[in-house]
Amino acid sequence: MKTGEVRKILLKEKLDAVVLFNKSPGFKYFIAEDFDHGIMIITRKENLLFLSPLYGPRFKGFKVVQWKKFKDDWLKLMKDKRIRRVGYDAGSVLLRQKRFLSKYLKAKDVGALLSALRETKTPEEMARIRKACRITDEIFKGIVNNFKSFRKESDVARHIKMAALERGAEMAFEPITASGKNAVTAHHNKDSKINKGFMVLDFGAKYKGYCSDMTRTVYVGNPSRKEVEIYEKVLRAQLSCIDKARIGMNCGELFDHAVKCLGGDAKYFLHGLGHGFGIEIHEAPSSSPKSKDRIRKGSVITIEPGYYNQKTGIGIRIEDDIYFGKKKEVLTKSTKNLMIIRG
Amino acid sequence: MKTGEVRKILLKEKLDAVVLFNKSPGFKYFIAEDFDHGIMIITRKENLLFLSPLYGPRFKGFKVVQWKKFKDDWLKLMKDKRIRRVGYDAGSVLLRQKRFLSKYLKAKDVGALLSALRETKTPEEMARIRKACRITDEIFKGIVNNFKSFRKESDVARHIKMAALERGAEMAFEPITASGKNAVTAHHNKDSKINKGFMVLDFGAKYKGYCSDMTRTVYVGNPSRKEVEIYEKVLRAQLSCIDKARIGMNCGELFDHAVKCLGGDAKYFLHGLGHGFGIEIHEAPSSSPKSKDRIRKGSVITIEPGYYNQKTGIGIRIEDDIYFGKKKEVLTKSTKNLMIIRG
Repeated sequence: MKTGEVRKILLKEKLDAVVLFNKSPGFKYFIAEDFDHGIMIITRKENLLFLSPLYGPRFKGFKVVQWKKFKDDWLKLMKDKRIRRVGYDAGSVLLRQKRFLSKYLKAKDVGALLSALRETKTPEEMARIRKACRITDEIFKGIVNNFKSFRKESDVARHIKMAALERGAEMAFEPITASGKNAVTAHHNKDSKINKGFMVLDFGAKYKGYCSDMTRTVYVGNPSRKEVEIYEKVLRAQLSCIDKARIGMNCGELFDHAVKCLGGDAKYFLHGLGHGFGIEIHEAPSSSPKSKDRIRKGSVITIEPGYYNQKTGIGIRIEDDIYFGKKKEVLTKSTKNLMIIRG
Repeated sequence: MKTGEVRKILLKEKLDAVVLFNKSPGFKYFIAEDFDHGIMIITRKENLLFLSPLYGPRFKGFKVVQWKKFKDDWLKLMKDKRIRRVGYDAGSVLLRQKRFLSKYLKAKDVGALLSALRETKTPEEMARIRKACRITDEIFKGIVNNFKSFRKESDVARHIKMAALERGAEMAFEPITASGKNAVTAHHNKDSKINKGFMVLDFGAKYKGYCSDMTRTVYVGNPSRKEVEIYEKVLRAQLSCIDKARIGMNCGELFDHAVKCLGGDAKYFLHGLGHGFGIEIHEAPSSSPKSKDRIRKGSVITIEPGYYNQKTGIGIRIEDDIYFGKKKEVLTKSTKNLMIIRG
């Protein structure tokens, strides 16, 4: 995706090439495949992949240079292509990769410029994200329908993973399936039997390398009136934030709006309101407190207020994925009415 | 695992602590869980986990320090514990993590010393690796039994992933399911319909964070006598290498032995003979050409000769996992007789 935009960066920054190592999120992004091996070199003229001969030689839009002697062939390639000044991504590069790069070349950090390209999505990216969201909705339906067969939290997580595989997808991140008091830990990651009370289900399918990210909180057993009230308050805050969000808006302000909606309960809201996503599960913009990021045309972000009360053991989070295209669109469509599952 | 050994490194290297970031393989290793968030600090007295409050507070053998203000709380912790000189892992640290570390502390690379600890396995680790190997064998049996239901290579890969999940395991790496001419690419990673000819199935279950790694090559259709002969030659080389391997042996020599066994066909053997594994799928020792690594008591390695002939389109690899404990043990037990599947 957008390798043409990288060339503009090269001209502006007076660089011969951008060099990305395999674990950089830009790597999968520019090659537009779920592949992360070798070294990517985007010059002013061409897209190259410096690759071990153990891998196949064909990638759309990229010319593969298979090495026999890694270092010798690297130096030869740099010389042949007259590459001396390169841009790299300081946010994702390993220390040893940076050392390798700087040993032979002048290297400049252009990570922020590269990440910014990913902040607005192309139609091709949106098609994958929409599909990922659709699969996520289907999986949620399956969880509810099969809930009686789950005994442990890990049974639910396994169901999510299998349902994604059945639909040609993977996991965008390790699912969070936190029941009862476990739901108070926003990123609960231990296994236990499914306890009564609120249960936070935070998961997302990844389709052709693109993420989705949704949270629904269901209730196992019979909720008290107070519990239903708290859920409704979080839901109203979430709906109000979705309503408020618009292109050009400051994401820190959106966070402040969530705090305002939650009122006295905002002290139980312990994380950011949301984040962009795409190739990575966390991308710009960020709706954390005091964020200066803005929602741009083509952004896709999560909106996910939460409530985590250590004393009462109540944990709630409601999260949707919102796309800001020609119009604002909620991509995740699972019901947010409190679903009561009598365990 | 082995945090006591880390303390010996601290004394020897005159360090106050070893600091590991979340994506370091040592992180999962020392905590002995499939968890990789926060910063791990192993001091001369205690094991600490510097963690976001979004995560739970309990980890066996580790005291969790939850931060509220990341930088301030980090500096306070370093001051309270009188940590000034730290060891880090230069092989796995990100550039920005190293910069963060060196901003406040004296940092020394002890990556090689930490990796060496993982080279020999504890009984607890071996229990997990054995289980991972057992699951891998079961999955192979399932592939053969269900082969008629697979149309594409990705169908086989999906079957492998689902079968692992059903057994409480994950994937140690993205499975390779390369049929026909695709098998010539050692790390084939594109999808296609299942072609006739040899089909390389390289996969491994990961159980409680520990890997296994097995390759079997089956034949779809009717092999020629020549094809059967080549398969038998690779198999004889593999068996001979397993027979030859022993504690104390130089791994480069073991590679040379494989080359000798393959004779004139060694020119089609395009990768190393094998590697250690554990938390990571590639660990020391390495049986690449000229390797100076040695097999140690407690090592577990793969032995995997291969044959990749671009001209004839024949690709074959046979791989087992070998443990060098009181006696030498082949942990992966799936049959290596050429399995002919009439497609």
